[in-house]
Amino acid sequence: MRLTLLGTGNAAQVPVYNCGCPACALARVNKHLRRGPCCALLECGASRWLIDAGLTDLAERFPPGALDGILLTHYHADHAQGLLHLRWGTGLRIPVLAPADPEGLADLHKHPGILDFSTTLDALQPVQLGDLRVTPLPLRHSRPTFGYLLEYGARRMAYLTDTVGLSPDTQAALHGTTINVLVLDCTHPPAEEQPRNHNDLTRALDIVRTLRPRRTVLTHIGHAFDAWLMRHHASGAAIPALPPGVTVGLDGDSIALHPDTAC
Amino acid sequence: MRLTLLGTGNAAQVPVYNCGCPACALARVNKHLRRGPCCALLECGASRWLIDAGLTDLAERFPPGALDGILLTHYHADHAQGLLHLRWGTGLRIPVLAPADPEGLADLHKHPGILDFSTTLDALQPVQLGDLRVTPLPLRHSRPTFGYLLEYGARRMAYLTDTVGLSPDTQAALHGTTINVLVLDCTHPPAEEQPRNHNDLTRALDIVRTLRPRRTVLTHIGHAFDAWLMRHHASGAAIPALPPGVTVGLDGDSIALHPDTAC
Ligand SMILES: [Mn+2]
Ligand SMILES: [Mn+2]
Ligand SMILES: [Mn+2]
Ligand SMILES: [Mn+2]
Ligand SMILES: [Zn+2]
Ligand SMILES: [Zn+2]
Repeated sequence: MRLTLLGTGNAAQVPVYNCGCPACALARVNKHLRRGPCCALLECGASRWLIDAGLTDLAERFPPGALDGILLTHYHADHAQGLLHLRWGTGLRIPVLAPADPEGLADLHKHPGILDFSTTLDALQPVQLGDLRVTPLPLRHSRPTFGYLLEYGARRMAYLTDTVGLSPDTQAALHGTTINVLVLDCTHPPAEEQPRNHNDLTRALDIVRTLRPRRTVLTHIGHAFDAWLMRHHASGAAIPALPPGVTVGLDGDSIALHPDTAC
Repeated sequence: MRLTLLGTGNAAQVPVYNCGCPACALARVNKHLRRGPCCALLECGASRWLIDAGLTDLAERFPPGALDGILLTHYHADHAQGLLHLRWGTGLRIPVLAPADPEGLADLHKHPGILDFSTTLDALQPVQLGDLRVTPLPLRHSRPTFGYLLEYGARRMAYLTDTVGLSPDTQAALHGTTINVLVLDCTHPPAEEQPRNHNDLTRALDIVRTLRPRRTVLTHIGHAFDAWLMRHHASGAAIPALPPGVTVGLDGDSIALHPDTAC
């Protein structure tokens, strides 16, 4: 079971167009620090699923047949815009599993092309995709949104974005579950007031304390959080900015969970 | 006055994902034959306007301040999807002039970011953009769509996509006008029945005969028309596939109209 983060940015991406902040300036000269829109590849046994489709070059990245399907967290453009072109392929059927959201994105549902939106997922109702068991977890966001608990044998990943905090339902569903890897929305640097649609670092670490995953990778990063991290790295402070076991994902990072190793 | 065609494909682009037709196979190995989604750069005196925004890497292509604004023909994804990311820039205001279409694309109108959609254009009511005079021409398509007559001194370009045929209004507006360059929707190879939303070659050439431009560049090309062109080039037929003065655009083609030269 391996998850590769293909896009770890928020909707604005990093660098933000016309932004001169230190994080955007650095990402402009160092491509490894750029953050694309939300997209991750999940490889599990023989199956390959995309989680979210914010990247707009999916037809270039994935040869026909390379994907078994796409799990969509929600229909915001930064998670689904890559489907606007991919749908016009030919001779294929690609299932897109997503929360019920009749509006979808633009005219995707009206003109699905090769995409099959016929199966919608229900909150907390697991589905079996080959050897992978997927449980949709309702998130707190500005439109219907699921995170996903991904189970392969005894290995478990939770992919939770976009969200601000966690609903009681989702907390209850994960209570007592050993999560090997948590991939978590952390769009903003620590904020005094709770942001509206996304975690800041304070709320993200609250979730980490609640769920106690073995390892946490923060994603959906905005430029202000990257700039905040740069300041705290540079400060030489005795207290590290992030607690042990919590890291910030980068585009291209691969997280492998082997059945025979503890993660 | 110069128009650079940045994307000359239809919504599926060329190559079409998973298509094995001769045109798609060739475009896969020869990048110069690929066709991206609709987008063109109009340079006129000191001003630079984008016509359509189907390309999804606009923030990479255009440094902040490089564009005076964007003329949108309509809100189909293949013409407007590049705005879904560009809007999240900072410290800029980019006017987007378009036909009235309350729905727009996805949540662009609800969350415009740096884009200013406040000015909508009216059919046949010219607007002056610096030295450029722009007349919106209603087209025949599946949602509110304008072509544009672009006048710079005595030089005139008409950019007409997406359309099938021309409405009497638009024909009347262009009647008697000398068009130096016509850029025209020709999505399909010659079809027996009139297609629903786009010209085939037969209808495109009907328009050429009606408007009698000095030069015509076909755009919004689908793979089947490219494949048809390959067959007719290869046939060595005495009758060329396209009449004199009519060419098929390629991504990157630049069409210059100098004030002191007849085109
Ligand atoms: Mn998002
Ligand atoms: Mn979202
Ligand atoms: Mn189109
Ligand atoms: Mn269209
Ligand atoms: Zn920035
Ligand atoms: Zn083809």
